Amino acid sequence: MTYDDPIAALATPLGRSALAVVRCSGEGCIELMATAFSRPEALREAAGHTVVYGRLLNHGREGQAELVDELTAVVFRAPRSYTGEDVIELVCHGSPKTVESVLGLLRRLGFRPAEPGEFTLRAFLAGKIDLTQAEAVAELIDARTHRARSLALRRLSGSVAERINAVKARLVEISAAVEIHLDYPEEDSSEVAPPVQALAAAIADLERLVATYATGKRLRDGAPVAIAGRTNAGKSSLFNVLLREDRSIVSELHGTTRDYIEQGIEIDGIPVTLYDTAGLREPGGAIESEGIRRSEVIMANAAAVVYLVDGAEPPSEPNWRQELEAVRARSGGGVIAVWHKIDRAGAGVPPGFIGVSSVSGEGLDVLRNALRRVILPASTAESEAAVIESDRQKQLIDRAVEALRRVREGLAEQVPLDLVAVDLQEALSALGEITGEVSSAELLDVMFSKFCVGK
Amino acid sequence: MTYDDPIAALATPLGRSALAVVRCSGEGCIELMATAFSRPEALREAAGHTVVYGRLLNHGREGQAELVDELTAVVFRAPRSYTGEDVIELVCHGSPKTVESVLGLLRRLGFRPAEPGEFTLRAFLAGKIDLTQAEAVAELIDARTHRARSLALRRLSGSVAERINAVKARLVEISAAVEIHLDYPEEDSSEVAPPVQALAAAIADLERLVATYATGKRLRDGAPVAIAGRTNAGKSSLFNVLLREDRSIVSELHGTTRDYIEQGIEIDGIPVTLYDTAGLREPGGAIESEGIRRSEVIMANAAAVVYLVDGAEPPSEPNWRQELEAVRARSGGGVIAVWHKIDRAGAGVPPGFIGVSSVSGEGLDVLRNALRRVILPASTAESEAAVIESDRQKQLIDRAVEALRRVREGLAEQVPLDLVAVDLQEALSALGEITGEVSSAELLDVMFSKFCVGK
Repeated sequence: MTYDDPIAALATPLGRSALAVVRCSGEGCIELMATAFSRPEALREAAGHTVVYGRLLNHGREGQAELVDELTAVVFRAPRSYTGEDVIELVCHGSPKTVESVLGLLRRLGFRPAEPGEFTLRAFLAGKIDLTQAEAVAELIDARTHRARSLALRRLSGSVAERINAVKARLVEISAAVEIHLDYPEEDSSEVAPPVQALAAAIADLERLVATYATGKRLRDGAPVAIAGRTNAGKSSLFNVLLREDRSIVSELHGTTRDYIEQGIEIDGIPVTLYDTAGLREPGGAIESEGIRRSEVIMANAAAVVYLVDGAEPPSEPNWRQELEAVRARSGGGVIAVWHKIDRAGAGVPPGFIGVSSVSGEGLDVLRNALRRVILPASTAESEAAVIESDRQKQLIDRAVEALRRVREGLAEQVPLDLVAVDLQEALSALGEITGEVSSAELLDVMFSKFCVGK
Repeated sequence: MTYDDPIAALATPLGRSALAVVRCSGEGCIELMATAFSRPEALREAAGHTVVYGRLLNHGREGQAELVDELTAVVFRAPRSYTGEDVIELVCHGSPKTVESVLGLLRRLGFRPAEPGEFTLRAFLAGKIDLTQAEAVAELIDARTHRARSLALRRLSGSVAERINAVKARLVEISAAVEIHLDYPEEDSSEVAPPVQALAAAIADLERLVATYATGKRLRDGAPVAIAGRTNAGKSSLFNVLLREDRSIVSELHGTTRDYIEQGIEIDGIPVTLYDTAGLREPGGAIESEGIRRSEVIMANAAAVVYLVDGAEPPSEPNWRQELEAVRARSGGGVIAVWHKIDRAGAGVPPGFIGVSSVSGEGLDVLRNALRRVILPASTAESEAAVIESDRQKQLIDRAVEALRRVREGLAEQVPLDLVAVDLQEALSALGEITGEVSSAELLDVMFSKFCVGK
């Protein structure tokens, strides 16, 4: 696979709409496009960052030309473009048939259909972005909530690379100190002291970054939350009030021909899928039906189970205590106990329960806060400028941290400094892989194949 | 509703993709956008048809700014834009959450969410396009086959308006001749002769244009085709071979995250939906089951029914004759008789039948041609440069033709010329409405509300 041949792909979703963007990049792509453009000279002479209006024509063998579309061509000149190459973004009519015709014509002109992520891969290869930013592009597109989007945007601006590079700078200094000791072993060994502190700081920094992964993963994958309780506990009404108040409504501004329906709800920027465990009966009773078995599975996989008790007609205390224990035993995550229908509850709310009314809305905020705490335990991530969500980045940071721990132990146990130097190099190499300073063709293939086409 | 306030709308389908385009238009829209742009001066000073790269920022009350997206702003200056106003096309990341954030910010900045078709409405009001071209925009986006797309493109370039204007020019000349007679009635009445010929030509021209409506409608709405016959006649194998060979495959070049599946098949550019009438039994026999009733409905609504006889083991001639008559009686369109399985048929194909083999493919082309002829009776439309598909245009042309026929009769019966002049004006006014020379607010409302947002 060469990496500068002309490629093309639809960069917007396919569907009936006002506009569609077909992105083209590569050596000679402007000249190639000009052969099918109604104003070839205007296109050839277009400066970078300008727009040329014209018609795309399919020239037949007998000299007749079929009109493919009237469109605008947005021209970017190398190296001032997304890929660093010459780029044309064709803004054509958003008809699936038009897009099909445009792409068909481009293929006949000699444009190769772009692989998934190939534009971003070229941007990386051209040194326009590092690998953490390339990953952020995909993460941004996939973001399911505004919070996830906002964090991906920070990564896109290089927040992760910045942190990694800061640690690398420290490690390079430590390496230099170690090298000096290797070269001049007669020097006082107390000189090793400062690197130990710097090392601890580097490890702490990386550990803080790795700790954000739980947040990133939660924001990416979302949290399944089960609502459990007896039939009369008001599960459905709580379910509905949460769906109604927290469902992320796609604003009317969207107004597209295709509706985008959010799955589940959003609590504090975390995508949450609510499950009504309709089958739950008295624990200890006969567990027979398929519905109950399904409830068990849902609870086991849940990040949190909300256990509801009908506060208006509560069961006896031994009863709900037993039920709560049963729910705790089954839940795969935390359990939040809710004393429901407090608008009609007689006695007070027992300790450990949150009083909630789905009618008046009382207690819903307390419930949401509790959910947030259970779903996102790593609350320290809140204040972090960089939150990672890439498995690849996490594994590489873990590898670097392990190597640095070996360095720390080696220094403490005064192992030969050349062994310490090897581990330092291992850490530096892992960190280098994160930003793509060190990379292999296989890695790039795997990474970019997850992208959508046109990016 | 004012028609120059700043409006904004998503112009591409909403979905996970590389890019999305948010279109903005209106008085002061560049200045408004600059207040949230990271490089406000670059945007303010941007020439038309240029691209400015920057960041869209949501300025909070306490002076902090949240990054909404990194994007390119394509700037068009009035009057050289789609709407004739200042236009910005924001090309942002194709994440639904990003689009939501961008549109939310624009609304806070003072952009009003655009009504469906409002950009095109403004283009019409600014005199950039006439109403037939505005309709062509919507027709182009909705085109289900390449042939429909190609005809809509011709309308977009003004092919219908050209024809209408040519007829209008003729009518204005006729009007002038009539006016002269009104003013100078003492002149020789033989002077009226030339207008009669011109009138006939105008009527013929409009009738030819109206005749294309059947084609346009067929291309727009498609043709339901039923396959009927006994259980062993091979309906499913014919069904499958047509689906396999003629299903309009969306080329692999598309590569979007959302697949676009064509309904049915495409025969000679006409969208065709095939129905397998599974329940058909011997006609005259007991018609009982729901399946058979459904088949009857399908046949009644079909543009064509393909009646299959198993040529390998044919029923007796009186039998299939009776069946064929029954199918003819039930079909809402034409009937095509197919002698199926001719690869295994012993005797010859009876007259009136097309011999087809779904195994060898023999006869399939003859069947397709027959289908095309039955589905699209107005084959004269093939060679027409302008084919209309708009109901509105058809009704107005019909109105003009009726008025012109009254003019013709009036001239023949020598009714007072001032009455003739009234009908001529009526024809001219109907034609004027087609291109939008004459238009009302209600008409525009109805027309453009059918558009998608962002167009």
